[in-house]
Amino acid sequence: MGKDFIRYGMVGGSADAFIGTVHRVANRFDERTRLTAGCFSRDEEKNRASGAAFGTERLYASFQEMAEAEGRREDGIDFVSIVTPNVSHYEVAKAFLAQGINVVCEKPLCFTVQQAEELAALSREKDLLFGVTYTYMGYPMVKFARQLVREGKIGRVINVSAEYPQEWLIDLLGEASSTAQLSGWRFNPKVAGISNCVGDIGTHIENVVAYVTGLKIKRVAAAVDYFGQELDLNANILVEYDNGAKGNYWCSQVSMGHYNDLVFRVFGTEGSLEWHQEDPERLKVCLKGQPMQYYYRGTGDIYGAAQACQRIPSGHVEGFHAAFANIYRAYSGAVLKKSRGEALTEADLDFPTVEDGVEGVKFINAVVASGKKDAAWVAL
Amino acid sequence: MGKDFIRYGMVGGSADAFIGTVHRVANRFDERTRLTAGCFSRDEEKNRASGAAFGTERLYASFQEMAEAEGRREDGIDFVSIVTPNVSHYEVAKAFLAQGINVVCEKPLCFTVQQAEELAALSREKDLLFGVTYTYMGYPMVKFARQLVREGKIGRVINVSAEYPQEWLIDLLGEASSTAQLSGWRFNPKVAGISNCVGDIGTHIENVVAYVTGLKIKRVAAAVDYFGQELDLNANILVEYDNGAKGNYWCSQVSMGHYNDLVFRVFGTEGSLEWHQEDPERLKVCLKGQPMQYYYRGTGDIYGAAQACQRIPSGHVEGFHAAFANIYRAYSGAVLKKSRGEALTEADLDFPTVEDGVEGVKFINAVVASGKKDAAWVAL
Amino acid sequence: MGKDFIRYGMVGGSADAFIGTVHRVANRFDERTRLTAGCFSRDEEKNRASGAAFGTERLYASFQEMAEAEGRREDGIDFVSIVTPNVSHYEVAKAFLAQGINVVCEKPLCFTVQQAEELAALSREKDLLFGVTYTYMGYPMVKFARQLVREGKIGRVINVSAEYPQEWLIDLLGEASSTAQLSGWRFNPKVAGISNCVGDIGTHIENVVAYVTGLKIKRVAAAVDYFGQELDLNANILVEYDNGAKGNYWCSQVSMGHYNDLVFRVFGTEGSLEWHQEDPERLKVCLKGQPMQYYYRGTGDIYGAAQACQRIPSGHVEGFHAAFANIYRAYSGAVLKKSRGEALTEADLDFPTVEDGVEGVKFINAVVASGKKDAAWVAL
Amino acid sequence: MGKDFIRYGMVGGSADAFIGTVHRVANRFDERTRLTAGCFSRDEEKNRASGAAFGTERLYASFQEMAEAEGRREDGIDFVSIVTPNVSHYEVAKAFLAQGINVVCEKPLCFTVQQAEELAALSREKDLLFGVTYTYMGYPMVKFARQLVREGKIGRVINVSAEYPQEWLIDLLGEASSTAQLSGWRFNPKVAGISNCVGDIGTHIENVVAYVTGLKIKRVAAAVDYFGQELDLNANILVEYDNGAKGNYWCSQVSMGHYNDLVFRVFGTEGSLEWHQEDPERLKVCLKGQPMQYYYRGTGDIYGAAQACQRIPSGHVEGFHAAFANIYRAYSGAVLKKSRGEALTEADLDFPTVEDGVEGVKFINAVVASGKKDAAWVAL
Repeated sequence: MGKDFIRYGMVGGSADAFIGTVHRVANRFDERTRLTAGCFSRDEEKNRASGAAFGTERLYASFQEMAEAEGRREDGIDFVSIVTPNVSHYEVAKAFLAQGINVVCEKPLCFTVQQAEELAALSREKDLLFGVTYTYMGYPMVKFARQLVREGKIGRVINVSAEYPQEWLIDLLGEASSTAQLSGWRFNPKVAGISNCVGDIGTHIENVVAYVTGLKIKRVAAAVDYFGQELDLNANILVEYDNGAKGNYWCSQVSMGHYNDLVFRVFGTEGSLEWHQEDPERLKVCLKGQPMQYYYRGTGDIYGAAQACQRIPSGHVEGFHAAFANIYRAYSGAVLKKSRGEALTEADLDFPTVEDGVEGVKFINAVVASGKKDAAWVAL
Repeated sequence: MGKDFIRYGMVGGSADAFIGTVHRVANRFDERTRLTAGCFSRDEEKNRASGAAFGTERLYASFQEMAEAEGRREDGIDFVSIVTPNVSHYEVAKAFLAQGINVVCEKPLCFTVQQAEELAALSREKDLLFGVTYTYMGYPMVKFARQLVREGKIGRVINVSAEYPQEWLIDLLGEASSTAQLSGWRFNPKVAGISNCVGDIGTHIENVVAYVTGLKIKRVAAAVDYFGQELDLNANILVEYDNGAKGNYWCSQVSMGHYNDLVFRVFGTEGSLEWHQEDPERLKVCLKGQPMQYYYRGTGDIYGAAQACQRIPSGHVEGFHAAFANIYRAYSGAVLKKSRGEALTEADLDFPTVEDGVEGVKFINAVVASGKKDAAWVAL
Repeated sequence: MGKDFIRYGMVGGSADAFIGTVHRVANRFDERTRLTAGCFSRDEEKNRASGAAFGTERLYASFQEMAEAEGRREDGIDFVSIVTPNVSHYEVAKAFLAQGINVVCEKPLCFTVQQAEELAALSREKDLLFGVTYTYMGYPMVKFARQLVREGKIGRVINVSAEYPQEWLIDLLGEASSTAQLSGWRFNPKVAGISNCVGDIGTHIENVVAYVTGLKIKRVAAAVDYFGQELDLNANILVEYDNGAKGNYWCSQVSMGHYNDLVFRVFGTEGSLEWHQEDPERLKVCLKGQPMQYYYRGTGDIYGAAQACQRIPSGHVEGFHAAFANIYRAYSGAVLKKSRGEALTEADLDFPTVEDGVEGVKFINAVVASGKKDAAWVAL
Repeated sequence: MGKDFIRYGMVGGSADAFIGTVHRVANRFDERTRLTAGCFSRDEEKNRASGAAFGTERLYASFQEMAEAEGRREDGIDFVSIVTPNVSHYEVAKAFLAQGINVVCEKPLCFTVQQAEELAALSREKDLLFGVTYTYMGYPMVKFARQLVREGKIGRVINVSAEYPQEWLIDLLGEASSTAQLSGWRFNPKVAGISNCVGDIGTHIENVVAYVTGLKIKRVAAAVDYFGQELDLNANILVEYDNGAKGNYWCSQVSMGHYNDLVFRVFGTEGSLEWHQEDPERLKVCLKGQPMQYYYRGTGDIYGAAQACQRIPSGHVEGFHAAFANIYRAYSGAVLKKSRGEALTEADLDFPTVEDGVEGVKFINAVVASGKKDAAWVAL
């Protein structure tokens, strides 16, 4: 007989961290996982307080210690969630993989393509499940968009227009502002890597479009704006896909009037799709010979993977937390199934994987490189 | 020293029930409450399976047994959540109040005004906290709307237009359809009470408008449509408030194109407010001498109670689950504070109470009565 | 051989008047009519200046003189457009009908139902074409809505929700304001009739819903608000139609955030329709078993009368002027055809007629009467 | 004493042509111009029929004959409107300028930058007024956007995102379709010039953004898609402005779900602006420290040039015809004023001029050239 719940651990994500809290709430939606171990902070006091607040039994002073100890236990964690700043993703992930522990890691996966591919190779070699929390793959209507593309409803994709503007760093455009005050580690290349804006949000565009269209980017030509900062704040990007289609991406953290406005529009020979993250319950679908349509989550019009991950009736908005929970439901479901020795189907693997993480790192690096070369094309 | 978490129990809400799951997820958002006891179903097998799934230690065969046992324990539950069909709300609530246990109850509170007032009196007498899950009070932008009204931003309220249309029962309009198949207990007056549509969703209009405006309804004149069913499916309602203002309410379960479309618009002598439940992150605000404005959850423009209950940055949609969690956070916070012997402020009591429940029952009864009298005015 | 253009005259509508200008521009869209005669103002100087500005050959000091003179001429006007304040509609229309001249009149048609029916009888007796400029019948997507209802696409109508809020008189709610300054003749019952708000805009709701649904109103129950003025500013109205369906109407001139916000939503047993005057190019259509749809003017999805009156490609917004021009194109087309002795089909008469005007006057009077009786039902 | 109306002529625009009709209706909005002369078609019969339909007195068999004859007459036309296919714009405009006649010409102005500059030089030399009908400059809310930028409301412009997608040529993506059938002269380089999509609609993006921001484009890098046709159907464009700001433009005629969807978003250091041509009555304005705002045409919030060109009250949509009429009102006002010997102010010249036409031709040529060079930067 197999288990009916999973133990997980967390590295990073002390009680006051935004994204760590989201990971924990997401896990609790489905009552399938228990936060059993943690190294929430290098600050001992913070770590202890967080462990108490979360009811976590096994607390560790370092991720290395945690990886080793959990790897040795019979009742060790089934997976670890890594929610530290970018710089440590690589070494933390590597440490847990080395101990045979499945990994969920925040995006971007790591700094270099070489590191990313090493992690991917290691997880394959060890036969471990490696998730990367590209949240937007968890939205039912994103899954439905993917389904329609796969069914050929919009024909062959010929153009994509996608963007992810935010406004929260606009004060950095003024002379008086202090980078550090506003944005902490995100502007420290040693902690954030070679990119701020593309690495934090541009990478989501790449991910969600790839998920929906099944296309890979062949090359990018990007005008990247730094506005006097060490790392980027804005990027206008031309994209060419492996099927010859083109597209335009735009990401920004200095665009007033946009909070977290990820939007994709995919155009094909037979129709088009459009989705707005800030209005996530509906998908605009335009097909030749038919009036403009909106499909809504939770209605009888939805089927497939999108239907399977719905939680409440249509019109009751499922927001960011529920989308995040869907990522974890798929991931922990796969871990559980695998732990029972069952074979995993493609449907079981409908969560962002280390392969998605690799593509993300390639994208970030190519965009930044193109920006340094006056927007010359750079292959991924 | 006081406690730092709360034990709660649940009556109804077995693993396959929609609203019970929402209550449990909502509780888990803040890790402050633990589901310690339950009587999830009268079906023994279902009850047992649910208890196992939820990890609930103390299972009871009947709510009576549960109330008594928990009332006696030193470590008994701090509150009970009642998520059964309408018919049993009254007696279940009464049983737990009698044992000195705080209560959260689904709406509508009960069948008759007399029952409702009895529950309210009992909770006052026993000095217990009684919440009624009128979900929409939990949305930050609804709280912000209330704040703006209280500050006098829109002046004196002169008119309200509010509605709650759904489409899910439209098949009941056809001859071939079977009520029972479609809607289960909701069309059985013995289980649902004297109203289906007004009792299930119309009551939310009354609640949210009262919360935002601070106005009480004096009387209603309603055209209530049954379309051949025993209970109502649609109602157009004229409203008069205690300040002399008028309004129109409309609720429906047979209106194609609307999923769960609660909307309120409040008009004052100096401005107006508008909120859509299906687009919950923003509030339309129109003030004399200013351009039309939209305030968004999570931005620097939000303050007060609305700000205090925000969980994630602007643009990351907080949906239905988070709103529900806000109800429970406020309620369990009050229970916790009270259990520590601290005095509760008005801000601590910012959740729907039994008094709101009483108003809801009055409203439902008045609307149905007016409908029976060809839309004559009926006082609340 | 018949004529290829039509002569028309105008009573009222001097150069500085809003609605007179709209009538003239509307006529000029199709180059089919020429403004040949006019009595634009009782002020001689204004009348002369207007005539000069418009290039109008035949100017008259009074409408009586104009009716007689034009009635006698071989090349007399084919129709007259009456754009005076409400009070004179009846006598001006009667004077021209008496001379055998076709009439277009602004709404509301006149003060009393008796007057309205007299005008209708007179136009029938004289076999004249009588148009009443209920503008919204001129919008292509309103015509398309009507077409879909007629085809049975939404089944039997079971409920209607329609409204027409404006904000422009909100200052009347303040104590300091002077009615006269703000709104001129509209608050003088001798000039405006028994109603301000219902007579000016509420009547459009009645008209457009009747046009789209084909339903007649049986009775109304209305809460009418005066806010200290002699005439009404706001009305919440329950409606019952001849097929037993119900509805809610709301019109207001004191609702901040609404400029000219006529909206109708028609719900049937098989689907629903929704149209917004401020977003006139699209029609929301929701049908059982299909995703939500938007039909757009000018696209290949549109057919019938809606298609026939389109002027420019989809996406190039046809606004208020074009809708008004459609009314005149239909009306002048009918006048021209009739003058050639050809038989008029139903399609030729697709403009608001004196019969619509009669219904409008009945509606206004019934709503005001119900308001005076504490919202008791009043039959039309 | 000066004149109070203006005579104009038209070359092209026979009765069945879309854009010629729009020009004539636009002229008739203000009753200031009379269509006195024309050469509507090379087809004699069509020309004659059009002249009769429009009541045009002076008909010519060729534009050369027309230019000479009108140039000689004392009562010759004050300006000519050129609405022929692109290929003849240059020679027709030159012929009328040579005769001292003011010119209005459809966009794109001509084929080459050299031709464009020649026309600009000629109009300066002859001291003539030369308008180019870039329609979107005629919308009040576009003028208001320009005003806000000029006042510094959004600070220094740092990024622009603008697009103009249409769907009407999507059938060209299929193999079976025939270019000629679908799109007539637009795909014949001898008649249309070197570009179809960029020349027809992309040029509007360049124009409207330049008008609103006051920025000039320094260079472009464009991925231009032909999809097997001789001329372009889609283009993704990176833009760099003379102030160093960047932007992304996208135009397309093969994007399902978009009819005529010109949108611009301008981002500055202090705020942003957004306008949608398909929803032209409002302008989204986001300023630091303020909630999101929408300004509406016709309200008391609008001032300056935007206010001056409003025709009807807010909420009554002014569409494409009225915007076009605004172009002609400004242009004919300037011609009239000049004919009276009065000096023209900057405000008098608030219409698209030959200088705008030159910029447009530069833009089109640069985009196409960049497309041919694999999206290398090309200076304008």
